[in-house]
Amino acid sequence: VKLLLVGFGVVGQGLAEILMTKGAALRAQYGFNPVIVGVGTRSHGTLYHPDGLELDALLAAAQQGGLQHYAGRCLQKDNDIPNWIRTTPADVLVEASITNLQTGQPATDYCRAALETDKHVVLANKGPIALHYAELQKLARYNGLTVRFEGTVMAGTPSLTLAMEALAGCTIHEARGILNGTTNFILTQMTQGMDYATALAQAQQLGYAEADPTADVDGWDAAGKLLILAAALYGKKFTLDEISVTGITGITPADIEAARQANECYKLIARITPDFGSVSPQRIPLSDPLAAVSGATNAITYKTDLLGDVTLVGAGAGRLQTGFALLADLIAIHRQGNIKAFY
Amino acid sequence: VKLLLVGFGVVGQGLAEILMTKGAALRAQYGFNPVIVGVGTRSHGTLYHPDGLELDALLAAAQQGGLQHYAGRCLQKDNDIPNWIRTTPADVLVEASITNLQTGQPATDYCRAALETDKHVVLANKGPIALHYAELQKLARYNGLTVRFEGTVMAGTPSLTLAMEALAGCTIHEARGILNGTTNFILTQMTQGMDYATALAQAQQLGYAEADPTADVDGWDAAGKLLILAAALYGKKFTLDEISVTGITGITPADIEAARQANECYKLIARITPDFGSVSPQRIPLSDPLAAVSGATNAITYKTDLLGDVTLVGAGAGRLQTGFALLADLIAIHRQGNIKAFY
Repeated sequence: VKLLLVGFGVVGQGLAEILMTKGAALRAQYGFNPVIVGVGTRSHGTLYHPDGLELDALLAAAQQGGLQHYAGRCLQKDNDIPNWIRTTPADVLVEASITNLQTGQPATDYCRAALETDKHVVLANKGPIALHYAELQKLARYNGLTVRFEGTVMAGTPSLTLAMEALAGCTIHEARGILNGTTNFILTQMTQGMDYATALAQAQQLGYAEADPTADVDGWDAAGKLLILAAALYGKKFTLDEISVTGITGITPADIEAARQANECYKLIARITPDFGSVSPQRIPLSDPLAAVSGATNAITYKTDLLGDVTLVGAGAGRLQTGFALLADLIAIHRQGNIKAFY
Repeated sequence: VKLLLVGFGVVGQGLAEILMTKGAALRAQYGFNPVIVGVGTRSHGTLYHPDGLELDALLAAAQQGGLQHYAGRCLQKDNDIPNWIRTTPADVLVEASITNLQTGQPATDYCRAALETDKHVVLANKGPIALHYAELQKLARYNGLTVRFEGTVMAGTPSLTLAMEALAGCTIHEARGILNGTTNFILTQMTQGMDYATALAQAQQLGYAEADPTADVDGWDAAGKLLILAAALYGKKFTLDEISVTGITGITPADIEAARQANECYKLIARITPDFGSVSPQRIPLSDPLAAVSGATNAITYKTDLLGDVTLVGAGAGRLQTGFALLADLIAIHRQGNIKAFY
């Protein structure tokens, strides 16, 4: 399986690292032999080699500051990434560039380019799925291709595979979860007595929060994930405007203490049904499975007709954790690939 | 897809009820049309109709006391179930008879009969998987068939699909969970101040515990599930003798209170690694995701190399909950069925 990888930040490097350490095991266990033939970035050009790029050299180049440091001699100053995707032979586009929840671009154009030239698409990038899921699915189906995006919600913790495959046959009435690790870390620290500003500073120090933490603390990151869940679970398109969003900046130590006294705790709860989406800090009883989810961990509870509540708890971010999401999607495509070949 | 169902207790009836209410949706959504052509019981004979039995009449007969009350005229006094399985045309054997963890019988013979006559096997029965997994898998593979058993651990909550499919590509170093709902219910009630005897009586009243609660409270039910996890995750065969098993009967209100004082709680923790299995009451911190799992709910945490801890929380028993496990396995076989047809 030949891969084009767009974006070579933390997540793309995570995938390269996993393929380097697990390549032999993947071949032995699943007969799966993924090869990164191309890496594309907007700022540092593109690399391509039909037999596959050297993973260790790629990772070393990233350490040194960019693809231009790649030891092989295959760097192109090609900044027209959609054209590069169209004209480069490969089986799957792995989209791991930076999310833009306003436009979904330029990643959506990359996905279109791939699907129009017979390449499956695997994304860690939330934008194209949050904004253009129906169009991309239609384009994929029309061309007999697959779009997968496990890494867009809860990193590699298989929240979407659980809902869309393992729970197939159940109706999911609602998804409700802790979908942003930064805010959960801050609320956890506040529960242990820290004030908001100190907790935020610590989150930034640990790399959980950006220098500008707005997208996390105001709830927009979680809201973007709700758009993806709405599309995946219900085939519904919500816009960010249609989600009721409140962040955690208004939560005071007094609020936290009042909750504690009542055997409750504050969590930033993201919730989606076929009709309604919201992100808001809520007091939940300590008996709720989401109450025990602390630090940067994420969790989601699916309310189902046949099983009742099913809750999944796990990592919501991280280099290898999100890199694994891409690998899991690639393995799933590899498995179904056998079907396509025989149809 | 034509099904033979062996055992028509709570779980078998749960499946029939789901197929009755969801039949149309399953056909529309997955192109999946399961039909129960035969039901076999040791005590009440067998029913068979090549076009499928009437689900409402089957459920009505069960309400009235047994298959002999089925309104159709197709009852056979056939008590040689293995022979009935061999000679009855069908695609899948659904094994939902009573678990025997000492011998795995008679269910293991039923599975052999099915696999030797070109029928996939789906089980809610723990015995054959706990004791004879390797043999049954080998027989299945030799005949190009599938054995699935989601319902044997945590009912329909997809603990096995999560580990074996959604986490494919991760190495699971350990599984650790609350795998018995009865004991978790009793410990939860004790945490709220009830003594052991009263909590047990209440569990029996609510139908969570048997009249003879030994298998649950002494830890053997959870140990049986560890045998299944060892086989599924590691391809290892443990015997019950090799699992270190301690039940909850020794836990006193004083123990519970001491744990509470230390911000901890008691849970009956079942744990399996490639080398070691144990079931024992343990004090765990309230920050552990398993700590918030209360009442008859079950949970499992997989320790993985790439994702860290992944925890799944959900129902561990119940009519529809276990019935759904059988449906989920049937849908999975239906999906892969396309592959088989084209090889």
